[in-house]
Order: sequence, then C-alpha cells, then structure tokens
Amino acid sequence: MKLKSKILGLEAEKPIVILNKEDAEEIDVRTLDRVDLVLGKQKGTAIVNIATRFIKEGEIGLYGEIMEHMRAKAGDMIAVMPSEPPSSLIHIREKLSGKTLTGEQINHIVEDTVHRKLSEIEMTAFVTALYNHGMTTGEVAALSKSMAYTGKMLDLGKKQIYDKHSIGGVPGDKTSMILVPIIGAAGLTIPKTSSRAITSPAGTADRFECLAPVELDFDEIKKVVNKINCCLVWGGAVDLAPADDLFIKIEYPLSIDPLLLPSVMSKKKAVGAKYLVIDIPTGEDTKVKTTKEAEGLAGQFIDLGKKLGIQTVGASTYGEQPIGCGIGPALEAREALSILKTGKGPEDTIDKVCDIAGMLLDFKMGRGGYKEAMRLVRTGKAYEKLKEIIEAQGGDPNIKPDDIPVGTEKAEVKSNVGGVVSWVDNHAIVEISRAAGTPKDKGSGIILKKKIGEGVKKGDTLFEIYAEKNYKLERALRIARESRAVGVGEKHDMLLEKIPRKTHHPKYFILER
Amino acid sequence: MKLKSKILGLEAEKPIVILNKEDAEEIDVRTLDRVDLVLGKQKGTAIVNIATRFIKEGEIGLYGEIMEHMRAKAGDMIAVMPSEPPSSLIHIREKLSGKTLTGEQINHIVEDTVHRKLSEIEMTAFVTALYNHGMTTGEVAALSKSMAYTGKMLDLGKKQIYDKHSIGGVPGDKTSMILVPIIGAAGLTIPKTSSRAITSPAGTADRFECLAPVELDFDEIKKVVNKINCCLVWGGAVDLAPADDLFIKIEYPLSIDPLLLPSVMSKKKAVGAKYLVIDIPTGEDTKVKTTKEAEGLAGQFIDLGKKLGIQTVGASTYGEQPIGCGIGPALEAREALSILKTGKGPEDTIDKVCDIAGMLLDFKMGRGGYKEAMRLVRTGKAYEKLKEIIEAQGGDPNIKPDDIPVGTEKAEVKSNVGGVVSWVDNHAIVEISRAAGTPKDKGSGIILKKKIGEGVKKGDTLFEIYAEKNYKLERALRIARESRAVGVGEKHDMLLEKIPRKTHHPKYFILER
Repeated sequence: MKLKSKILGLEAEKPIVILNKEDAEEIDVRTLDRVDLVLGKQKGTAIVNIATRFIKEGEIGLYGEIMEHMRAKAGDMIAVMPSEPPSSLIHIREKLSGKTLTGEQINHIVEDTVHRKLSEIEMTAFVTALYNHGMTTGEVAALSKSMAYTGKMLDLGKKQIYDKHSIGGVPGDKTSMILVPIIGAAGLTIPKTSSRAITSPAGTADRFECLAPVELDFDEIKKVVNKINCCLVWGGAVDLAPADDLFIKIEYPLSIDPLLLPSVMSKKKAVGAKYLVIDIPTGEDTKVKTTKEAEGLAGQFIDLGKKLGIQTVGASTYGEQPIGCGIGPALEAREALSILKTGKGPEDTIDKVCDIAGMLLDFKMGRGGYKEAMRLVRTGKAYEKLKEIIEAQGGDPNIKPDDIPVGTEKAEVKSNVGGVVSWVDNHAIVEISRAAGTPKDKGSGIILKKKIGEGVKKGDTLFEIYAEKNYKLERALRIARESRAVGVGEKHDMLLEKIPRKTHHPKYFILER
Repeated sequence: MKLKSKILGLEAEKPIVILNKEDAEEIDVRTLDRVDLVLGKQKGTAIVNIATRFIKEGEIGLYGEIMEHMRAKAGDMIAVMPSEPPSSLIHIREKLSGKTLTGEQINHIVEDTVHRKLSEIEMTAFVTALYNHGMTTGEVAALSKSMAYTGKMLDLGKKQIYDKHSIGGVPGDKTSMILVPIIGAAGLTIPKTSSRAITSPAGTADRFECLAPVELDFDEIKKVVNKINCCLVWGGAVDLAPADDLFIKIEYPLSIDPLLLPSVMSKKKAVGAKYLVIDIPTGEDTKVKTTKEAEGLAGQFIDLGKKLGIQTVGASTYGEQPIGCGIGPALEAREALSILKTGKGPEDTIDKVCDIAGMLLDFKMGRGGYKEAMRLVRTGKAYEKLKEIIEAQGGDPNIKPDDIPVGTEKAEVKSNVGGVVSWVDNHAIVEISRAAGTPKDKGSGIILKKKIGEGVKKGDTLFEIYAEKNYKLERALRIARESRAVGVGEKHDMLLEKIPRKTHHPKYFILER
C-alpha cells in the first residue's frame, strides 16, 4: 500500500508513524505493530499508531526520527507493509517464561533495543522478566558485553586503565571529583566518565561542570587522556553502552533495578578498564543496608569482572549521612575544589576519597595506597593535576571555590532543641535539595552545618538551603518543615524518633549507578 | 508553571502532553512522568513526552484526548505541575515482587487502568507480574469483579440470564450464531455479547453483522432482549469490562494471556449471567491441547463462577480442524443461516451447537437438552427466532444465504495426490484466510471442500479461497502454496507429515476469548 507522507513536526525517541484506521485494517496491522517502509532507496521500520481523524485515508503521518531516516518530504508516496516482528521478541518471550538465554540471543535483544526496534511493552517485558527470573552469571556477562559492544569503545592503546564506580545512594558524594586528580597525579590512567543525576541532587558530571566543560566527544576525550592521563567527562555525550539509558527509562517508573550489574560493568568494559574499585555506600537510607549485603553485591561485581577481564574489588563505605557538607552541583564543586586546593576539609570526605583511591593505587603498589593518596592531597600534587584536567577540558584552571556561583536565595533551618545530632535522613536531604532546584539549578542545594555526633544548642543552624529562585526556596523550606532531615536529641530518644521517618518516604527509589 | 497550550491535532488512546526539555527540567519531570494540569475549573492528569524543538519553552503540546478533557483552546495558559504517581503503582510493584494483592488493591489498579492513569510500562509490568507469579483464586475473583464493575452492568430485572463462551482457537466456529436462536426459541434469556476477530478470521460479531447490525447501545440491547429474550450484539460497543481491551493491547504483542479467566468472566458478570457453558476447543493446533488440560481449565472457570455467583460448566470440544466448511464472516454467516433455515448442514457443526445448547438447556430441564436443541433446529423454531433477532436488531429477516455477498475473486486449491485427508492445519487456514482479507473484507475467506477422513482423488479441490481484491487473493494463494493446510496421504504417512508443520508457525498466538 502506498501512502502520502504528512510531516507531523513531532519528535519521539523512537520511529513512529500514524496510519488512518481504515488503512491499518486494510494491511492488517494494529496499534504498536510494526510496518516496513520504502521510499526510493531508503528502507525503514516504524511502530504504528492509529488515528481516525487527524490522518486521513491514504496518508501516513511521520514523526521526526523516521522522517529523517527515510529522508521523506511532505507528499512523498511511501510504500507501507506489515513487518515481521523483530526476532528478538521470541527471546524476550522465552525469558518471560523463565528460560535461560544464550549470549547470541541476549545480543539480539540488546541490538534491537539500541536500534529502537522494540516497543515499550516489549522492553518492559524484558526488564520485568530479568527482575522476576534473575540472570545466570553467563547471562549477566553476555548482557554486559552486548551493552558495551553495541556502543562506542574507547581504545587508548596499550595503557592500563584504572576506574572506579559508586552504586550511589548517598547525597553529597563528591569522591570521584577528588579521586581522579589523585590517581592522575600518581601517574595512572583513569578516563573517568560519569553520569548526571537521575534521582539524586547531583551527579559527578553535574558537579565537575561547575569547573570545566564535561561534554567532550570521543576524540576530545582521547586527546585529553593521551596528554594528561585522566579526565572527568559526562558519559552520556559519548554513546557508551547506549542500551543502558533505554533500560533505565523502563526501570525508573517501576522502581526496579535488575540491570545494575550489566549497566555498570558494560560502561567499564567500554572504556577498557583493567582495574576497578566498586564503592558500595552502606546504610539504612541507601540501596544497601548492611555490610553483609554489601559483601554479597561486591562478590557479584568481582565475579562478573573476572568474566569481563576487569580486576575488581569492592568497598563498603559508611552511608548513614551525606559525604561532607555541601549538597548540590556548585556547593559540592566548591567543597571538592577547596579540599584539593588547601589539603583540608571535612574529614569524612578526605578519608573516603583516600580509601577508594588507595585501593586503586594498591593494584599498582601492592600496599600503602591510602597513605600515598593522602600525601598527594596534602602536598598539592592532586590539586596540580586537577588544574591540568580543568585546563585540558576547556575550563579556567585558576578558578577558586568562591568563583563558583551559588544561589542567592538562602534560608537557615535551626534546631528547636539542644542535644546531639543522632541521625541525618538522606531521603529528606535529597527531597529538600531537589525541591530547591538541584540538579538543574546548579547553584541550589544544602550545606549541612551539623553532622551525626555533633553537639547542638537550641537555635543553632542545622543546615542552610540555597536556591536560585524564590519559589523553589519556599518549596524546599516547606518540605524541610514537614520532614525531619537532621535529628537532634538525647541518645536514648533515638529509637522513638526513628519510627515516623520510615513512613515518610514509602516510594523512595534511588536510581543512580 | 504556566504554559501556553498548542493544539497538536493528534490523537492517542491516552492523555499525552509534550513539554519542552527546559520546562520539563525546571519542574523536574521526565519522559513518561505525569503532570497535573489546571485550566479554569478543569483539572486533569497527563503523561509527559519531551521535545527539544517542536515545542518551544513556555509551550505545552496537547494531544486530542487531554485537549478535550481540559476543554483547552490554542493559546490557553495551563498550569502544569508534577503529579504524584498513581497510588496503584505501589500495588503493581508489590505484585511484581510476588506479593498477593487484596481485592481493594486490585480494584485500585483496574480503576487506574480504565481511567488511563497508567502508562504502557506500568500496565506491562502488571500483566507480566500476573503471568510470572500467577494469581490466587481470590485475586482472580477480585480482578473479574473489578473489571466488571468499572464498566457498564446490564440489568434485565428478575430474568435468569443464560450465556455461553468459547475460548476460541478453532476457525469457522459459528456456534454462537446458531445457538442463541435455539436458546431463545426455548424461551430462555440469552443477551449474547460477542467480540470481533483479533487474530482469527472472524468473531461472532463479524459474522452476525452480515445478517443484521450488531453495534447496539445499552438501551437498544435492553429493548431487544425485553421483547424477544435474546440478542447477538458486539460487546465492544457497550463498554462491558472496558479494562479488558486495555490489557489485551499489552498481552497481544507478548503472546501471553494471563488474564484469560477474569477477561471472560468479568463480561459474563457484567451481563448478569447466572448459567454459563464454557466451550473449550481442544486439539493440537488450539490453545488447549488435551482433554486433561481442558478439564483443568474448566475446573478453574467453574471455581471462579462459584465465587461470582455464576453456575458454570465446561465443554471440551473437538478442535483439530475448522468447524463446518465456511471460514470468514460472510461464508460463515451463509453456513449458519442455511443450517437454521433448512435444518441441515455440516454434521460436526450441528452436533457441536446442540452439545453446547443442550448443556445450557439442561440447567433448566435437568436432562434431554441435546435432543431438545436438535428438535428446535429441525422444526424451524430456531430459524423463526433467528428471524426475530435479525428484525429486532434492524436487519432483513427474509435474508437468504445467497443474499450475503462473498468475494468475487476466487481460486481453488487442488490435491496433487490421492488418499485420505489426515489433517487440517488450523494455523495455516487462519493465515491463508487472513491474507485473503478476513476479517476486514467480510466476503473473503475459505470454503473447505474436504475434511479429515474424507477420500481425495488427485486433482480434487481441497478448498476454495474467496477474496474481494485480487492482490489479496494472490497473497493468500502464495501462503497456500508454501504451507500445507490440508494434508492428504495414506494413514501410515501421518507421523512423517506432522514434523514440518510444527516449525512453520513458531510465532503463532491465538488471542480470542
């Protein structure tokens, strides 16, 4: 059947065409079925939507993506016929009924995902099947490889690549931003790609963007790393393991995360990592509640690493409260810059950074990594490296913490009792800082003035909220008043205090990898 | 945030708005998140799509459904804010992780489904969760009731309602069309609603539409049934258990059918059925392969019926080949009309109809139902009732079989060997007749000239193909040549013949209820 193209001027993240109901029935396709299109030499496949009025009989409405792919103009006559369903759908159905898939079958699914051949329904069926039936180690390894190889692969020649990854879940965690200059200063190669925030106040890419551009392309990354052996860039700009973003779109609304391991490891594989530390923040309000759970998860990463040729170790780190004091892109960038510039700052942050950096250095040194990391911070060597990174990526290497703009709308949240800080509620901190504007408004966020164990007098400031817009500050303050982000009391009060805050956030789900 | 409405002139089957990327980030929503809308006194909820170019900052693009709901015109300023996720999503997540849901929780999910508050991802998660974890009898009953009560309920006062349902899977099954006049002639009340074809060549509604209109509204149905105690109408026009159509859209591409029982029984509940026969066609090429399987499934229907106050019996019927000879709306309507008019016709069809009709009559008579059904056919009483139905629904009661138009494009498929018909491949028959144009082209389809056990001489016609358009006839013939729809051979050849045809249709899935 030949249909006359109508350009809709609409974009979707997948190839959609709209057919009139009569035409759809004529060629026996239904909503969400696929059709093959031919226009001159161009061929394509699109997902069918059906309209009764907007698209007339004899017309085909084209969304932007398929229009560009087909090089179609308004009025072109496009041949349209029902297509065979993508063959990977058979494997999705098999997984749905509990079968174990081969590497080839998994690769088929990932390829069809990346080429947008699968509908949301089909992708959801795959993700929920993985969630329900789990995966064998073989399947996880195959999935990781497929996700890596269907994207770009960073090839830095003979260099031994070091890398680190945090599974996230604790706000204010500016570890990578401080660690990369340390590892770089030690002479190791660490082409660090990182993400932007999904559900958190800031991702490493959001933070470092306050110091230098992070959206480098593949060639630029290579150039920077070849010159100064490290970088701090946004992974989203370089098409590493692109299937991951598509899977995340399914996992996020369902609050499930069956692809955690392949998601992380496919990206490490794609940058050619040989040595890797996985940071697993552990605590009541994070993804992983106990060190025992952390050990189990680390074990899975280590096993998977073996199958992928990546020597992996895990670190369970204290995650009961934010890391350091600043939360939000600019406030965290200020804190990280200050630590490297002065060699001083919140002890928890410096200790955590040197722990993880030390484990990476130990791959090379065998032992003494922690001390060496600390030395590189204290002596300013890491700061020198940071300046190199900033310059190489196109920023101003002489930027000072105060040069980084923060929100001018500001409020303080004070304690109405005296005592000792007995807990900090990570979920509430995240909610308040997102209400204040993070991660979009880079200057928004929170500065914690009191952390667990510190003494508090009535009227002391517990934390400050920064926002770029007044209505966001008001919104954040409203949430701050309703929740108890920082708990102050006598030690024996604690148990009573904990009960209400568990019920405040029943829907909380962290999706940061 | 207030955004200026832009009318897209596009329809979706759900409420979609398109925001510019900047605005979406500003209010912290992502693709497929929901936003609440306010315009004057109108309030609504819509699913977010994001555009970078087509919708500018400060604009909101409205699809038809939400535009109508909000009574919005181009240029209206609409207040937009992130909405809380529908609370039923929590229950979907619970089912996804294997929990048993309460009736209230299930009702919540069904209501949000019917009100289009759930995205495709969320509905797919629900359907796959049911598929993976199964349902308790309590859950199935709750789901059936919710699906019924979220739609319209047919109330015929004190009448005892009889009903029948086939789970489908065998082509040419015109049982309902012959059975309803029999039951009606016996003086019982049977307000039969039926479906159009999804994956088959014809549904009862498609068939009966060749004799009379089937798209009656609620009041018309009541009027007809109150007058002549039966009807044969399309259920899709009257909003019975509307959730079912929405679930089917998810099940169909995945070839899974976890909602079979609630789907069928919710509709029976909605018409107030008290006595019900479930027909379970049984055979290698149907949904149910063995009588043992049929017994199991019937048992589930019977148990569920008890919980819903519907006295239910099951019938496992022979389904190894099509019922009767005609396949396709008009060809089946001709055959059914002819059987009732003359009291004669294919023995298998008449026998099956009287079996099922007899089981319904036995609810009233205790025994002897089969004979009574046969009597009503042979004496022309059932034909008189059929004429009443046709007239009451607005058709011509004096229509004769030959008055029903069939396709003028015709071809015969002949046997190139002599022997005995040892099998008929239902899947191939369906594929050929759909290629010929069924169910859309009412006059298209197949007439089987030879059925299992009949002798065949070389050159005898095995079946005829009818089409309304030549290119569809060609397409059907191509498939007829590639597949072996009717197998002719010596009896001892059979086992060898069966092997290839299992591999012809690896993706075949029947979704008819």
